[in-house]
Amino acid sequence: MSLTRPSGKVYDVTDFLDDHPGGSKIILKYAGKDATAEYEPIHPPDAIKTHLPPEKHLGSVDPETVQKVKIEVTDAEKERLERVANRPPLSEVLNLHDFEAIARVVMPEKAWAYYSSAADDEITNRENHAAYHRIWWRPRILRDVTHVDWSTKILGHPSKLPLYITATALGKLGHPDGELNLTRAAAKHGVIQMIPTLSSCSFDELVDAAEPGQVQFLQLYVNKDREISKKFVQHAEKRGIKALFITVDAPQLGRREKDMRQKFEAEDPAEVTGNKQQDKVDRSQGAARAISSFIDPGLDWKDIPWFQSITKMPLILKGVQCWEDALQAYDLGLAGVVLSNHGGRQLDFSRSGIEILVEVTRELKARRGLTFPNEKFQLFVDGGVRRANDVLKAVALGATAVGVGRPFLYAFSSYGFEGVDHALQILHDEFEMNMRLLGARTLEEVKPEMVDASSLQSHIVAVPGDRLYDSNYESMQHARLREVKAKI
Amino acid sequence: MSLTRPSGKVYDVTDFLDDHPGGSKIILKYAGKDATAEYEPIHPPDAIKTHLPPEKHLGSVDPETVQKVKIEVTDAEKERLERVANRPPLSEVLNLHDFEAIARVVMPEKAWAYYSSAADDEITNRENHAAYHRIWWRPRILRDVTHVDWSTKILGHPSKLPLYITATALGKLGHPDGELNLTRAAAKHGVIQMIPTLSSCSFDELVDAAEPGQVQFLQLYVNKDREISKKFVQHAEKRGIKALFITVDAPQLGRREKDMRQKFEAEDPAEVTGNKQQDKVDRSQGAARAISSFIDPGLDWKDIPWFQSITKMPLILKGVQCWEDALQAYDLGLAGVVLSNHGGRQLDFSRSGIEILVEVTRELKARRGLTFPNEKFQLFVDGGVRRANDVLKAVALGATAVGVGRPFLYAFSSYGFEGVDHALQILHDEFEMNMRLLGARTLEEVKPEMVDASSLQSHIVAVPGDRLYDSNYESMQHARLREVKAKI
Amino acid sequence: MSLTRPSGKVYDVTDFLDDHPGGSKIILKYAGKDATAEYEPIHPPDAIKTHLPPEKHLGSVDPETVQKVKIEVTDAEKERLERVANRPPLSEVLNLHDFEAIARVVMPEKAWAYYSSAADDEITNRENHAAYHRIWWRPRILRDVTHVDWSTKILGHPSKLPLYITATALGKLGHPDGELNLTRAAAKHGVIQMIPTLSSCSFDELVDAAEPGQVQFLQLYVNKDREISKKFVQHAEKRGIKALFITVDAPQLGRREKDMRQKFEAEDPAEVTGNKQQDKVDRSQGAARAISSFIDPGLDWKDIPWFQSITKMPLILKGVQCWEDALQAYDLGLAGVVLSNHGGRQLDFSRSGIEILVEVTRELKARRGLTFPNEKFQLFVDGGVRRANDVLKAVALGATAVGVGRPFLYAFSSYGFEGVDHALQILHDEFEMNMRLLGARTLEEVKPEMVDASSLQSHIVAVPGDRLYDSNYESMQHARLREVKAKI
Amino acid sequence: MSLTRPSGKVYDVTDFLDDHPGGSKIILKYAGKDATAEYEPIHPPDAIKTHLPPEKHLGSVDPETVQKVKIEVTDAEKERLERVANRPPLSEVLNLHDFEAIARVVMPEKAWAYYSSAADDEITNRENHAAYHRIWWRPRILRDVTHVDWSTKILGHPSKLPLYITATALGKLGHPDGELNLTRAAAKHGVIQMIPTLSSCSFDELVDAAEPGQVQFLQLYVNKDREISKKFVQHAEKRGIKALFITVDAPQLGRREKDMRQKFEAEDPAEVTGNKQQDKVDRSQGAARAISSFIDPGLDWKDIPWFQSITKMPLILKGVQCWEDALQAYDLGLAGVVLSNHGGRQLDFSRSGIEILVEVTRELKARRGLTFPNEKFQLFVDGGVRRANDVLKAVALGATAVGVGRPFLYAFSSYGFEGVDHALQILHDEFEMNMRLLGARTLEEVKPEMVDASSLQSHIVAVPGDRLYDSNYESMQHARLREVKAKI
Repeated sequence: MSLTRPSGKVYDVTDFLDDHPGGSKIILKYAGKDATAEYEPIHPPDAIKTHLPPEKHLGSVDPETVQKVKIEVTDAEKERLERVANRPPLSEVLNLHDFEAIARVVMPEKAWAYYSSAADDEITNRENHAAYHRIWWRPRILRDVTHVDWSTKILGHPSKLPLYITATALGKLGHPDGELNLTRAAAKHGVIQMIPTLSSCSFDELVDAAEPGQVQFLQLYVNKDREISKKFVQHAEKRGIKALFITVDAPQLGRREKDMRQKFEAEDPAEVTGNKQQDKVDRSQGAARAISSFIDPGLDWKDIPWFQSITKMPLILKGVQCWEDALQAYDLGLAGVVLSNHGGRQLDFSRSGIEILVEVTRELKARRGLTFPNEKFQLFVDGGVRRANDVLKAVALGATAVGVGRPFLYAFSSYGFEGVDHALQILHDEFEMNMRLLGARTLEEVKPEMVDASSLQSHIVAVPGDRLYDSNYESMQHARLREVKAKI
Repeated sequence: MSLTRPSGKVYDVTDFLDDHPGGSKIILKYAGKDATAEYEPIHPPDAIKTHLPPEKHLGSVDPETVQKVKIEVTDAEKERLERVANRPPLSEVLNLHDFEAIARVVMPEKAWAYYSSAADDEITNRENHAAYHRIWWRPRILRDVTHVDWSTKILGHPSKLPLYITATALGKLGHPDGELNLTRAAAKHGVIQMIPTLSSCSFDELVDAAEPGQVQFLQLYVNKDREISKKFVQHAEKRGIKALFITVDAPQLGRREKDMRQKFEAEDPAEVTGNKQQDKVDRSQGAARAISSFIDPGLDWKDIPWFQSITKMPLILKGVQCWEDALQAYDLGLAGVVLSNHGGRQLDFSRSGIEILVEVTRELKARRGLTFPNEKFQLFVDGGVRRANDVLKAVALGATAVGVGRPFLYAFSSYGFEGVDHALQILHDEFEMNMRLLGARTLEEVKPEMVDASSLQSHIVAVPGDRLYDSNYESMQHARLREVKAKI
Repeated sequence: MSLTRPSGKVYDVTDFLDDHPGGSKIILKYAGKDATAEYEPIHPPDAIKTHLPPEKHLGSVDPETVQKVKIEVTDAEKERLERVANRPPLSEVLNLHDFEAIARVVMPEKAWAYYSSAADDEITNRENHAAYHRIWWRPRILRDVTHVDWSTKILGHPSKLPLYITATALGKLGHPDGELNLTRAAAKHGVIQMIPTLSSCSFDELVDAAEPGQVQFLQLYVNKDREISKKFVQHAEKRGIKALFITVDAPQLGRREKDMRQKFEAEDPAEVTGNKQQDKVDRSQGAARAISSFIDPGLDWKDIPWFQSITKMPLILKGVQCWEDALQAYDLGLAGVVLSNHGGRQLDFSRSGIEILVEVTRELKARRGLTFPNEKFQLFVDGGVRRANDVLKAVALGATAVGVGRPFLYAFSSYGFEGVDHALQILHDEFEMNMRLLGARTLEEVKPEMVDASSLQSHIVAVPGDRLYDSNYESMQHARLREVKAKI
Repeated sequence: MSLTRPSGKVYDVTDFLDDHPGGSKIILKYAGKDATAEYEPIHPPDAIKTHLPPEKHLGSVDPETVQKVKIEVTDAEKERLERVANRPPLSEVLNLHDFEAIARVVMPEKAWAYYSSAADDEITNRENHAAYHRIWWRPRILRDVTHVDWSTKILGHPSKLPLYITATALGKLGHPDGELNLTRAAAKHGVIQMIPTLSSCSFDELVDAAEPGQVQFLQLYVNKDREISKKFVQHAEKRGIKALFITVDAPQLGRREKDMRQKFEAEDPAEVTGNKQQDKVDRSQGAARAISSFIDPGLDWKDIPWFQSITKMPLILKGVQCWEDALQAYDLGLAGVVLSNHGGRQLDFSRSGIEILVEVTRELKARRGLTFPNEKFQLFVDGGVRRANDVLKAVALGATAVGVGRPFLYAFSSYGFEGVDHALQILHDEFEMNMRLLGARTLEEVKPEMVDASSLQSHIVAVPGDRLYDSNYESMQHARLREVKAKI
């Protein structure tokens, strides 16, 4: 059985049918046809190379001669396209929330589900944002803030903002240019992009697109086949990547039910009557699991020296969630850790990075005498950030920088490169404002004593409401306008 | 007056009219007719034997000759049946919440009311779930979690999951096979079922249905007539029951107003104008009280040695709610306690089992040097559990296992055996995921230091809202799509 | 100018026009007519005697000959009467909340506003109930609770329940029999009624209605003219009143805006264009202020010995709100205090009685060695109670009994005497249930260690919500029923 | 290019086009026409003098001969005017919330947006009010409160209330008389008005309107050109201003998105397709930034001695937000500080003034032995106050007086002078009531021990809700009315 995929290449996928993480059914649907449009956004760019031995690459055909899968434009899709056409001009987008509001209505449902979904009941996903609301400012006055500067250094590399664009998968779900939108905006604004293992664009494409001197980091999901990881890492180092962020919070990708449910809704209704037991597994995977079967759940502290042996790039663990593991990373000579719960997409009821930051700085000070921010062992947090105000709280508490992910996805899903560009410009405006109002001329002046984080560890749930009492209570009313007189 | 009941048996119920816990009126309604359909789900299977002396058993009739009570199918019932027919396929059921959502719309109203109802304002009922939300994880990374194992031993018996199917009454309200659905699914998944005293299926039916070697426990409501209890317990032991859970939180079954209200709504409207004083008591009972008048409010610590004298089964108290009573159970040589408030169905404002667990482990360590989980004195909790994530928190805090009740009722009420089967499969999936994300390969590695339970004891109620201020506040708005141009 | 009032008596009110607390306009409206229907509910029964010198009492007329004020039955009133006719039978009323729900729809709007209104933003009014939600039970098990007894003694007098019917004004607003409904139900159930100074029924009527041996207390608003108060108190003592509760939290009656707003809505729309400055004061008073101008804001601790000199009744201060004042009451030899904020009708942001109870017992133990409940110095609380569960928390924390007000008003406003009777029966049922479930056979066994009140002092307000973030969050959805197939 | 502005003056604005903070486009729109109606409310009265050199003042024209910009009355505006006509009579306005409710519907949208808007997500804006809800009263009883007196002295000047009318900009947006409404009401009620730098009425107009002996303060935004500030301050001192409040929390005016969004909505839809980059800055400014470009972000503690050298008026810093800066102000010999976050309009997540007050009094007592209220170093708070109840909490905690801003804006925007007059009268009523209920005869008797502020520092956010669980929970229902029988 043959399948035509990107660039008019034809492949023999007969033997692969049973191994396809997304199940065989979807492949059979496109047999003998050009599956490029469906294939591209949800497959890592090197998927074919990795999974199909060379002898199955049958060669090229003239794309014009292949039968395209006819995409029927549904009414829902027509309405979506009308919403796309009616996006507000970027000048009306005032904050990062706005991009999300627009992306929600202009993105294809499936893409929105993949980007926005999180683990289980999505408690941690929302807690990531909420945690910042338990930190309050103690700003200082009467300092000459004519000139304020919110640039910094991240792992020794200059950054115009104390944040980086963190790794997120499947950029083409949101925009045909995928992660390239981020690369270009990062260049323009002097910020660092972390290239994801699971990008829609290929790694080399993203490196090629960088401006001379533009700094890029790499996020790594470690493959069960370590040789693949080794090749990837050493290739990255050769191409000039400046740091390697090893993801440690995802031995298996989380159950993200919005994403999983999306699958069902996209199904042909006729199919759902089939033998549920047999096809249950592939059906319930969602995009996340479909693309992640190679990740090694066996990754262990014992692997760290091996990583240190294959690359000279600074190594950072992404997904540390308690001081004990941060301490171990430090003791092993790593360059830093990202305090992160993977955007709430892995273990629900994981605490927010900003909350973990407080315990990490406290314990590493008590046990190793470290103070933060610290050049030799850098702390990063990600998750839930929407405003410069949030970022500055992390900085005040000792973070070197903050990773921002979804907001930039929503920015390019709504407006492509211009969206990310505008998002970064908004952040600049917010930083200028907030630095002045804090009385801090540089990030060094953003100090722990400038925040009151004493409520940060409170995980409060209100006692369940007394519905009978509440429904009896008659809400107070304001004075009311008099009735408008009837017109004669 | 004669009444035909299950299996075409005919009974003389004339003398019993005044003693019927559900009032005489309902019996008179069915006089001379076959009352099986109405009778079965809400009566314990041995009710007739217990309440009617042998001379009132008049013998059998040919069911075909008896006048059936004509059940008129209402419009509401027709709509319900249509909903039943439109249940989503099980493959779309992603979590235990889903079963409840489906059960709510496909179950008969009265059955839903009985299962879902709880005491007074149902504060404790919801607190049981909410309490888990005040416990947050401190997961560990970089441990080889290729192989994770969440099996355990409960009172010495192997269980594939650290949970058991706890006792719940009146299974036939939800499904014609009643508790048999649970017995079968328990067998398939290697978990333990606790047989309830108030099952719709008879005790022997449930034991007979067990696979060879399948472990079952028994929950006991102690009868005012101790001889009846003694016979029941000794019969159970003989039939191979492995442990006896004596319910101690229900000297009287709670006021469950949803259940009670259901009665009124089911009433013939003409009746409500009758003499309210006279028939008030029976009307307001609901299913719970109708079936529970035999329970002895006189049960006392003094009875414990007697139980120890009549059976060799390990004895566990179900419904302990403070450390003092847990300690006393330990000192009396019992095998364990279930920290439980009866699913919120007894005393409102009782604390959740998971909250009590923390004080019990602390005090039993301080006073008797015990650590938990402990083979010799096992702690169980139940109430509010919906995810493996919840169960693991209880394990981390020292519980041997967790009892799960309503979710399985909702599963079989929606899909029969397949529902419970699927529910258990979901839990397996969730356990695998969560164990890996916690960095715990076995339940022994799920440690207290993995959770932050410092907010668990907070019973917070927000200050009542300022309605005038709040209604003046104009909510912020996102950037909006431009108006869609009118079509020409 | 003459006015015909109750019992066909005619009065000359010309000189009184300017002194009328409700303004002159309302009197002029009824000049020469029979104003009984409007007059009765909102005037204390001895108002005429107090305010009009004997020479203004012109004598009697034949009621038939006087022009009745024609009451036009509005559409809204017709709808209300239809709702009254459709009240559910009492057997369907399961709890005290139900009475309130029914009263809200069957009471005249003005009466509902007067009963339900509270001070300022009604924060304290709702906090009174909410505070009970911060107290959780630690029930005990395996105590023989076959016989449970929730009777007690209040100031030496037996009470079948640990609660009394507290004083509330203007009973006839809700029902033509006014406070007599309470007197009769109190008699039937063996509870004590506290007669209010501002009752709609006269004091003597209420005493006359008592059964032989029925215990009644008296609530006193102290008159600027102490002689009037003295006469009233000594008359009460002579009539057999057993205790005097002096209200100390109301030197001036609170601004209750629902009540005040009601006035405007009842106004003739034509009037609102008048000179606002001039008639502002009387218009904005509401019922509360209209009836309370005699209360003395000058009442002082110095007056206590005088009260002790004029009566031998035990004296209790009603409205104490901190331990300092409770201590002073004790040191002055009073019989007790009611920890109360007047049902939230006086000073907003006053704390609930149950919260104050904890500090009072703590400080009076520390400073005077007292333990509670204490026969010699009794503590009462009122406000917010809706269930026996609430009452028992107060008892556990040291209260002798709890005052219940609005629930009984709503009960008789909905169903007259039968309503109050049924309300008390519900409470009996709840007490029996709760005592058993607590493992307490008598009120003495309801101990402080049975509650966890550690969150009671928390006055938490959640951080204002992030509206942009929240409106972006897409709520999770359950599995959905499949579409119902179209009928052929 | 010429422009006709107020009073028929004509100006040459050609060279100024590019410097106009609001962009050139808006000026071009009015070229050659009379722009008075649009110009007046949003420009400080001395704007022309400040920005245009004398030679550009071309002289006067006869207003009648100039082309007026034709204001088209939209349907929305017609509806608004109808709402204005239907305002309730002032006698129905019972509290300050009511003014806001009315202003919201009767004010032009743009004006409402400017007054009500706040920084970022407006968290601090609402927290300012919410913080008062975490402070609860411990009132005292049995004190003779026949006479209560809530007058005080502010910086040595008598005030009939412990509050002042704080500085707010652009009064003419709400009412043609602008801040004159405040001056007149302040005179009538014996309270002090703080004149804002950015008033719509000119400074001299407001001083001229004062009654003899009426005390006024001045709020100062410090100009980059210190000479302008010096002239202004010395002129103010000469005109009798009694104190100078230097704003220190606004080196740059905050991003207030409601205000910014208003701009877009007011835009000609045709314009939004233009080059967004180029005109982005001016478009997104909103009223706040348009009027504030002169403010000096370089203001520093070093400037304080200079202020002390140019005026003998007492100097107060407005916008202090931590004890450290309050201490420094004290050490520099200033007369006091206003603990304020600028009504939530500057740095979001700034704490409320009332919360800061607690730390300031604690630390200044610990470090300098000061007690509060203190004549020599006075503490003020502003933000979020709506009731006398709120004000008294600030007084209890050590504030000399409280600044009230928006409520008075809403009062005059709804009813002009009479609105402010009525608002102050309401406050008097509330003060009388609350003082009596607190048992405080004078403000000196309003003591710290009268409040429980122990929850004030809690910045709690509830754990995000479990949407699946919550949507499964079936809310409890009350007893329901029986169906109304069909009419025959």
